[in-house]
Amino acid sequence: MAVNLPPLGTLLPVPGAALASACAGIKQQVRDDVCLLQFAPGTQVAAVFTSNAFKAAPVLLAQQHLAKTGGADVRALLINSGNANAATGELGLADARACCQWVADALGVETPQVLPFSTGVIGQRLPLTRIQPAIASLAGKLDPDHWAACAQAIMTTDTAPKALSAQVTIAGRPVTLTGMAKGAGMIRPDMATMLAYVVTDACVSAPVLQQLLAHATARSFNRITVDGDTSTNDAFVLAATGQAGHAPIQSAADPGFAELQAAVTDMARSLAQFIIRDAEGATKFIEVRVEGGRNAEECLQVAYTIAESPLIKTAAFAGDPNWGRFCMAIGRAGIADLDTSAVALWLDDVCVAEGGMLAASYTEADGARVMAQPEFRVRVHLGRGTASEQLWTSDFSYDYVRINAEYRT
Amino acid sequence: MAVNLPPLGTLLPVPGAALASACAGIKQQVRDDVCLLQFAPGTQVAAVFTSNAFKAAPVLLAQQHLAKTGGADVRALLINSGNANAATGELGLADARACCQWVADALGVETPQVLPFSTGVIGQRLPLTRIQPAIASLAGKLDPDHWAACAQAIMTTDTAPKALSAQVTIAGRPVTLTGMAKGAGMIRPDMATMLAYVVTDACVSAPVLQQLLAHATARSFNRITVDGDTSTNDAFVLAATGQAGHAPIQSAADPGFAELQAAVTDMARSLAQFIIRDAEGATKFIEVRVEGGRNAEECLQVAYTIAESPLIKTAAFAGDPNWGRFCMAIGRAGIADLDTSAVALWLDDVCVAEGGMLAASYTEADGARVMAQPEFRVRVHLGRGTASEQLWTSDFSYDYVRINAEYRT
Repeated sequence: MAVNLPPLGTLLPVPGAALASACAGIKQQVRDDVCLLQFAPGTQVAAVFTSNAFKAAPVLLAQQHLAKTGGADVRALLINSGNANAATGELGLADARACCQWVADALGVETPQVLPFSTGVIGQRLPLTRIQPAIASLAGKLDPDHWAACAQAIMTTDTAPKALSAQVTIAGRPVTLTGMAKGAGMIRPDMATMLAYVVTDACVSAPVLQQLLAHATARSFNRITVDGDTSTNDAFVLAATGQAGHAPIQSAADPGFAELQAAVTDMARSLAQFIIRDAEGATKFIEVRVEGGRNAEECLQVAYTIAESPLIKTAAFAGDPNWGRFCMAIGRAGIADLDTSAVALWLDDVCVAEGGMLAASYTEADGARVMAQPEFRVRVHLGRGTASEQLWTSDFSYDYVRINAEYRT
Repeated sequence: MAVNLPPLGTLLPVPGAALASACAGIKQQVRDDVCLLQFAPGTQVAAVFTSNAFKAAPVLLAQQHLAKTGGADVRALLINSGNANAATGELGLADARACCQWVADALGVETPQVLPFSTGVIGQRLPLTRIQPAIASLAGKLDPDHWAACAQAIMTTDTAPKALSAQVTIAGRPVTLTGMAKGAGMIRPDMATMLAYVVTDACVSAPVLQQLLAHATARSFNRITVDGDTSTNDAFVLAATGQAGHAPIQSAADPGFAELQAAVTDMARSLAQFIIRDAEGATKFIEVRVEGGRNAEECLQVAYTIAESPLIKTAAFAGDPNWGRFCMAIGRAGIADLDTSAVALWLDDVCVAEGGMLAASYTEADGARVMAQPEFRVRVHLGRGTASEQLWTSDFSYDYVRINAEYRT
């Protein structure tokens, strides 16, 4: 069902990181639904979380723990699927704290060195009596080679696990990155029901790690949208164990910074695109590129209006080059003084409209040919500046409705 | 398919207004797709149009004509379905002008006294060679009793015509109002692929008519949403023929103003709700009411975020009281300093959440019972002020996808 989602390739162990997954029977009894990532002492972590005002308990607690430690010497991530522990109030917060405490006890670290993550149904308490023994079993089987099982364990409505590895050379030494993510609905900038983790053995200072995180997020997880809804639980975590043995990268001018930034950003973009390729009910992978704006903000405004229009998403599902719907979306994006006669539209390389009207060269057959593909690009030129932005989205299919209508049953 | 959409009742003729419909074969050969409303000399017209930057040619021309006449002595409205004459540039404008000219010639009036309206597919030229003879035939069969046929002729994906009549007494004289509207997707505040007409024989000044229009619009057509998309062609027109014979209403203090305002607003609200009841693929009619806000704007922000969330709309289709999705939507509505622990949520009279958490009294069975109904109300209390707002929306069903995926085929 996913659109050109590649199968898991080789997932490289990252020196300083060990993993395990287990079944706590949180929602189903038949699959692993908790996983633990253990980091070597001194591991630096940077993270961004959902902007939703209803932040889930694990988000609030992870933010508290990061505030305490500054992200230095984070020793473990505990992730569960099947239950978001969101809108659960003080009780939910206490539940998340108990889970971190059990992990800390099992690993012999302090509770604030453990960060909790949850995804799944909102508004239900975590089944602590089943999670506690699962944590004990996780601690006993940590292994650097368990990435694939963990990528599977964090899934909710994902149809396939999403993970990949990369290597770069910094100061002559090989540096490894392995990342995993889960989607699959409620994705939009500032993220949603999306968890993503990238772990590297690179050696970087805390400010540099934050910089890498911000750069990558703005080009990946904050440039995707499935349905405009954002969740209570989203997080993107970047962890650096510092085991690679090269000289620490302490500023953007240091050797290896550019290579590492490119590698982290590429990995984040790949994971973000994997999420869209496996969006709920997706049959199309669509890149929306808006050029010729006065600034990035108005380009994004138009791009999101296109990407989140149900009428465009259903037309994409049908492979119908209903270009009037694109005009409609551009027109309602809220750019007050837009000169529509300067607007042009392409589907891949087919010029559909220019001067605010159908292009003379355009044929319906050309448009239909582009939109029949599983992947295509919508490109808009606003004709009023030099800014450009791009993002990725999926279509609305019968299955999107089915999946979301049946999610809890 | 529509949700409790009442069948057409008796549609009262309005003194000073005559109508006719005909088939011009614009999109199909088998149904009436053009209609003409003729008004008596001296008829006042006020209108609001789409805020979309891609305004269709008929919208631009109607605005030009109204600017010329000030809405005084408007003599005819020409409406076609099947083709929106939108994104057609200067050629489309010339086409719309030609249609108005033909109507003006047939009725012996000036071209600016004719207002054009179109709805249907975007980006195609009007078939003028078929519309010209249709206009000639329309002029020959104008009749005050042809409301039902015209309500049918303006339909696009509507499953049933939408029209109603009302009477009020002003200064001892009966005053009639008859209105009609068409939907059915792309509806949102500031309107979308929505045409609505209310005609009365009341005698009112131009400023009073504008006031009635603004008051009614803010409580009806600007408080509905199907999918957040707004069209290039929307319009709401209020016409007063002045034939009722009572003393003219020239200010809000004049006798009859309050009664007339209530009647116009009620009719506009009914027509707006008819559009939602017959929204594309709708199986539910949902009122979203947000109370306890600091101002109307933030109440509307939350209400629209709920009403346009695909995850809530699919849960509504399933009748699933997935209250976490409501929390998610409230949380992402963009109210920066929202205290989620003050938020409460009801489905009809069932308290679902309070203090930002599931209510102790709540049972899933109670929530499911409410959402199983074809109509229900979502009520949110933000706990931070006294403002409130409400709007109406529908769900997302398989049929929404089917209708919009197949619209042009």
